[in-house]
Amino acid sequence: MKVPPEIISFLKEEDKFFIATHINPEADALGSSIALSMALESLGKETVVYDRDTVPEFCRFLPGYERFIHSTSNLQPSSFNLVLLDCNTPERAGIDGIPFKYSAVIDHHETETDFGNVKWVEPDAAATGMMIFYILQELGIKMTKEIAINLYSAIAIDTGTFRYSNTTAEVMRVAAELVEAGAKPAFVSNSLYETWSEGRFHLLLSALHTLEIKDNVAFTFVTQEMFKKTGTNAEDTENFPGFPRRMKDIKVSAFFREIGENHWKVSLRSKGEINVAEIASRFDGGGHRNAAGFRIKGSLESAKETLLNQIRQLR
Amino acid sequence: MKVPPEIISFLKEEDKFFIATHINPEADALGSSIALSMALESLGKETVVYDRDTVPEFCRFLPGYERFIHSTSNLQPSSFNLVLLDCNTPERAGIDGIPFKYSAVIDHHETETDFGNVKWVEPDAAATGMMIFYILQELGIKMTKEIAINLYSAIAIDTGTFRYSNTTAEVMRVAAELVEAGAKPAFVSNSLYETWSEGRFHLLLSALHTLEIKDNVAFTFVTQEMFKKTGTNAEDTENFPGFPRRMKDIKVSAFFREIGENHWKVSLRSKGEINVAEIASRFDGGGHRNAAGFRIKGSLESAKETLLNQIRQLR
Repeated sequence: MKVPPEIISFLKEEDKFFIATHINPEADALGSSIALSMALESLGKETVVYDRDTVPEFCRFLPGYERFIHSTSNLQPSSFNLVLLDCNTPERAGIDGIPFKYSAVIDHHETETDFGNVKWVEPDAAATGMMIFYILQELGIKMTKEIAINLYSAIAIDTGTFRYSNTTAEVMRVAAELVEAGAKPAFVSNSLYETWSEGRFHLLLSALHTLEIKDNVAFTFVTQEMFKKTGTNAEDTENFPGFPRRMKDIKVSAFFREIGENHWKVSLRSKGEINVAEIASRFDGGGHRNAAGFRIKGSLESAKETLLNQIRQLR
Repeated sequence: MKVPPEIISFLKEEDKFFIATHINPEADALGSSIALSMALESLGKETVVYDRDTVPEFCRFLPGYERFIHSTSNLQPSSFNLVLLDCNTPERAGIDGIPFKYSAVIDHHETETDFGNVKWVEPDAAATGMMIFYILQELGIKMTKEIAINLYSAIAIDTGTFRYSNTTAEVMRVAAELVEAGAKPAFVSNSLYETWSEGRFHLLLSALHTLEIKDNVAFTFVTQEMFKKTGTNAEDTENFPGFPRRMKDIKVSAFFREIGENHWKVSLRSKGEINVAEIASRFDGGGHRNAAGFRIKGSLESAKETLLNQIRQLR
């Protein structure tokens, strides 16, 4: 993986950076942002780190997560250079219309757009954290323990701790270097996966009980009612879409989360060659080949049927 | 990690090897055995690979799993040198009383015994597969794709795909080399974790429904009745003990599997510093610090209570 020289020049020549990532952030978005902020500040630059949404509970183990601000009201964006991480449109970060000096995009999602004065979009990168790792190397940044934990977490979440097909020998070598620099795999995994509340555990059970299988597609869902009953919220459904994939015969897992009356957020997970990013894009969603999402209106039954028809067409 | 020279001499000087591993084998036991067999045969040695039990369904993706024999009736054991892998007593392999020429032990379990003419017991090794990797290096074996898949699977299962505290930078570097040699992380993970039958999925749901939490210990169980209802068997409970550990407040997960009338196989999983191998040893069981097991007689309620008392004493 080769960092485009214009990305390095941009980061070297400019002095003030507004690092922003996508709404509903997870550990790749957050860890990459914090790591880049720490690195640029070690070079004497000024940075702010922005996410429209708050840092979810299960990511508050990332050293430096307090850096995130959630409003631009106290600063003058036009004096900052935007660095958009792990997404490639201002809309995905909830900052459309805000004028910045220059804009850079660093992302590994497939759905590329025109936005950005300089950009590095690398769908083959397992995580944006991998791209930041190489940028830091090019910039000659000393790998601190704090940066290592952030980048290790970014890579761990986006490879499912080295389970997905994006896990290459290179990914494992970078992970080894980050462990050497102080990231503790068990600490990161425990923090990411083993900090559930009891309510969340019961929510998972309820969700799995809604399992319905049609044409090798597994459907599960959670409703607002189920959240209320277990004292949980949307953030607690992280990882739920992947569960039905454990079954040998399941090719696609579709997880429906009720976000309003007859309104659903659908998360897709697939195995092997089935490209769910393509399916999601037909509903104006996006993502990666094996993990993508979109929103859909209508009754649960009709939404399921519409999706199933799209999946059938793909085959 | 340094391979004792007497292990290397033993493997170099002898010609016929009976490679045996523990009953109820999993991917570390099986993958290590197959890899060593393939390596020794590439040096012109004769090997047989033995397990008392059959290779479980979810391990039949390991290249060369057909090598396993389950009876010694067609051979003369005394002409073979025993290599005991991933365990350290003939009893654990179900071969006590069988006379071999010489015996070697290669294991990473904590509970060491006197058995073996030459031995290498390394509790700090994440997997027996790591030890075999270093032995193969010392022997100058060419790393084939088949051997790489076996060793990668061995390491993957025993580190929970790089999630447990035994995951070091060294482990990740060895994994990177194995990926380079042809092991595919996604193929191995899918094979290990995503080949469940629908019945197994429903068995998991039933098991999780038995959840009871006392003093930060999670108890779950499956009965013969539950196996019957879902068309599953003991092998299908692999990974079940780890599930309740997802909850933040759970320090120990104890999973009870009914093996007879008022007779239970108990699998313990813990987080951090709680040594469940020590608890298991009080019931004549064994294992590692964070994963161990034992058998107990009595009603489910009394068995739970007896265990809980032992855990309380440990604190």
